[in-house]
Amino acid sequence: VNVEVLAVGTELLLGQIINTNGAHIGGRLAEFGLGHYRQAVVGDNLERLTEAIRETAERTDALIITGGLGPTQDDLTREAMCGAAGVEMRHSEEYEDQLREMWARRGRQMPASNLRQAQFPDGAEMLPNHKGTAPGLRMRIGSCLVFALPGVPEEMEVMLDRFVLPALVGEDRGERGVIVSRLLRTWGESESRVAELLADIYSGSTNPTLAFLASGGEIKLRLTARATDAAAAEAAIGPMEAEIRDRLGGLVFGADAETIETVVLDACRRRGWRIGAAESMTGGLVAAALTGVPGASEVFAGGIVAYTASVKDAALGVPASLIAEHGQVSAEVALAMADGAVDRLGVQVAVAVTGSAGPDPLDREAGTVIIAVRTPAASRVRELMLPGDRERVRTYATTAALHQVRLALAQGDA
Amino acid sequence: VNVEVLAVGTELLLGQIINTNGAHIGGRLAEFGLGHYRQAVVGDNLERLTEAIRETAERTDALIITGGLGPTQDDLTREAMCGAAGVEMRHSEEYEDQLREMWARRGRQMPASNLRQAQFPDGAEMLPNHKGTAPGLRMRIGSCLVFALPGVPEEMEVMLDRFVLPALVGEDRGERGVIVSRLLRTWGESESRVAELLADIYSGSTNPTLAFLASGGEIKLRLTARATDAAAAEAAIGPMEAEIRDRLGGLVFGADAETIETVVLDACRRRGWRIGAAESMTGGLVAAALTGVPGASEVFAGGIVAYTASVKDAALGVPASLIAEHGQVSAEVALAMADGAVDRLGVQVAVAVTGSAGPDPLDREAGTVIIAVRTPAASRVRELMLPGDRERVRTYATTAALHQVRLALAQGDA
Repeated sequence: VNVEVLAVGTELLLGQIINTNGAHIGGRLAEFGLGHYRQAVVGDNLERLTEAIRETAERTDALIITGGLGPTQDDLTREAMCGAAGVEMRHSEEYEDQLREMWARRGRQMPASNLRQAQFPDGAEMLPNHKGTAPGLRMRIGSCLVFALPGVPEEMEVMLDRFVLPALVGEDRGERGVIVSRLLRTWGESESRVAELLADIYSGSTNPTLAFLASGGEIKLRLTARATDAAAAEAAIGPMEAEIRDRLGGLVFGADAETIETVVLDACRRRGWRIGAAESMTGGLVAAALTGVPGASEVFAGGIVAYTASVKDAALGVPASLIAEHGQVSAEVALAMADGAVDRLGVQVAVAVTGSAGPDPLDREAGTVIIAVRTPAASRVRELMLPGDRERVRTYATTAALHQVRLALAQGDA
Repeated sequence: VNVEVLAVGTELLLGQIINTNGAHIGGRLAEFGLGHYRQAVVGDNLERLTEAIRETAERTDALIITGGLGPTQDDLTREAMCGAAGVEMRHSEEYEDQLREMWARRGRQMPASNLRQAQFPDGAEMLPNHKGTAPGLRMRIGSCLVFALPGVPEEMEVMLDRFVLPALVGEDRGERGVIVSRLLRTWGESESRVAELLADIYSGSTNPTLAFLASGGEIKLRLTARATDAAAAEAAIGPMEAEIRDRLGGLVFGADAETIETVVLDACRRRGWRIGAAESMTGGLVAAALTGVPGASEVFAGGIVAYTASVKDAALGVPASLIAEHGQVSAEVALAMADGAVDRLGVQVAVAVTGSAGPDPLDREAGTVIIAVRTPAASRVRELMLPGDRERVRTYATTAALHQVRLALAQGDA
């Protein structure tokens, strides 16, 4: 099938918000091999919105609309669908009751304007929204299967996977059912190398499908299965996940909502250890990443950003003579920084990062990063050369440092 | 005039990149009061791209295309414009020479494929690109004024201001000339309060225009003048800028590329002082923000992230008894943290942040932030209550902390 996407909202045209929904939906359609050649944005104007829906419905098999389902007068997607389909607006007593219940649970009176969200074009099916109050809609306009989803990304994404993608795959291949995804997170090899290791799975399987997503030095794999019910889809993902984990071994560090920050904090927590950081080139980003996780204070004790040689000496106890002998960007200094963090912060696990973020070289060529980790059971130093500008080098170095902690903790178990 | 925007690129449809260009162009069109009701995205397919240009040119006064001007075979905007306009492709000997010169200056041989960038539809004008090798294009297709700009945002943005907006304003109001913008950055009042203070300027002036942009707690003002030449446009901005600075006083902290990070570092540098940070709730974000600026190491000495009471004691010398008496989130502890940073990092200026980032309260309600600054000439403590989730509270607190440093340095001068 050929799918188009239409985002609705004057604030998109004014540039006040960026259309990330379009990119997300496009990515998901591609993973399912669904044809997708065109997207559009229109504002909150009934005439133009109606016309956009009408003309799109005439030329395409399926249309996904995002936005314009809120309770206010400028939320016009429902009215425009009526206009484009030539049908009347209906009112759902059942959904009105649900809305009143939702507001009552929050202990608040429902504003009358919210009754708009109980309206639907005649012939449309309402799609439940488990993260908000705006239901989605599904209806045929001519031969085109039209979906309307809320503009809020978290609400849209859940409903896309739950209602839209299974229906589109159904249109496309005559399959009915549900869709379940699993995200496997890897670090340590390039996207091309990971793709090579999994080439036969990637090209050999259409259900579950496998997709690669690269970000910040990590390569994510998304496995997506279609089946008649969730249990069958999970059962279909299982063997592919097992095969991938087997091939990639230690490259896989987490699944779904597990990030490298949560993995490191959990690994320390399990051992009853506290962690601290000693940073030069990353300038606080390692500490900031770990403290971004709610509840980090149970495990993360603190960090020392030692940007100058004198602070490395005063705050971390790295002798000036050691720096003079080896340079600030050296394995010797990185290890001494980690030891200083163990000592000064009273932690069991310490990670230290030194390097040259650029644009000007510091001691060593810009992009040089040295990471040292001390745990009660292991010691580890790695030197990396990272490409890109200052911001990119600092960001990648931060991710790499957290992965070296993970590897040092695993090394200590061995 | 009625302007539409068409973004070209299969990677946009696949969700590999997000269409930020559409939002940027939409925002600029709105600032100039130009009609803008519709945007679209198409992939790198000659037939569909040609059809999209043709149908858009039929219904609108002006069309801005972004992307598809690169040197490779899937950069098809030039060909599609020929097809939509029904004209032949031409080759610019002059631009070919310029391309060869650009490559020679980089000490490299130009790949033959780059000759594509010297091609242009018959009747089109080539628009110089000072930040890259892909020239823009300007031509009429029927009565529609069509611009093609590169997809790289930095290249596109410069050419939009330089060639496209002046021409559209010319179409709209019969004015010819150039456009010059100035960005004034403010902090300390809400967008609605700043807008109120400037309401008569905002509604009373159409040239220069005034626009408000809010991000991360800072409110930016963009002044944009149209005039026959750059000197005249600068001269038109001058009096409006002076009036705004006069009304807003200390709320304005920088202009154009000056950020709060560069303003703070420069203010310390001018005084010959070094700065350090002592952070609890921001967890390293203040240090990370300052070290994000190239050359920060001349001014920023280091930071201590003291996430637990014991690290506040060990690394910053904040007595456990003080914490027991006042709580971790208190003005007394914030000041003691700043003093500890002065002492342990050997700096003249120290900023300390403590607070409760949430979601669970720590000592005080989630969202509570206390910032203390010590300079040789001033001492300052402020308590804030910030809305939003953990990430938002931490980000806003970081910006607020840097602004408190700026205010403390100014206070010391008074």
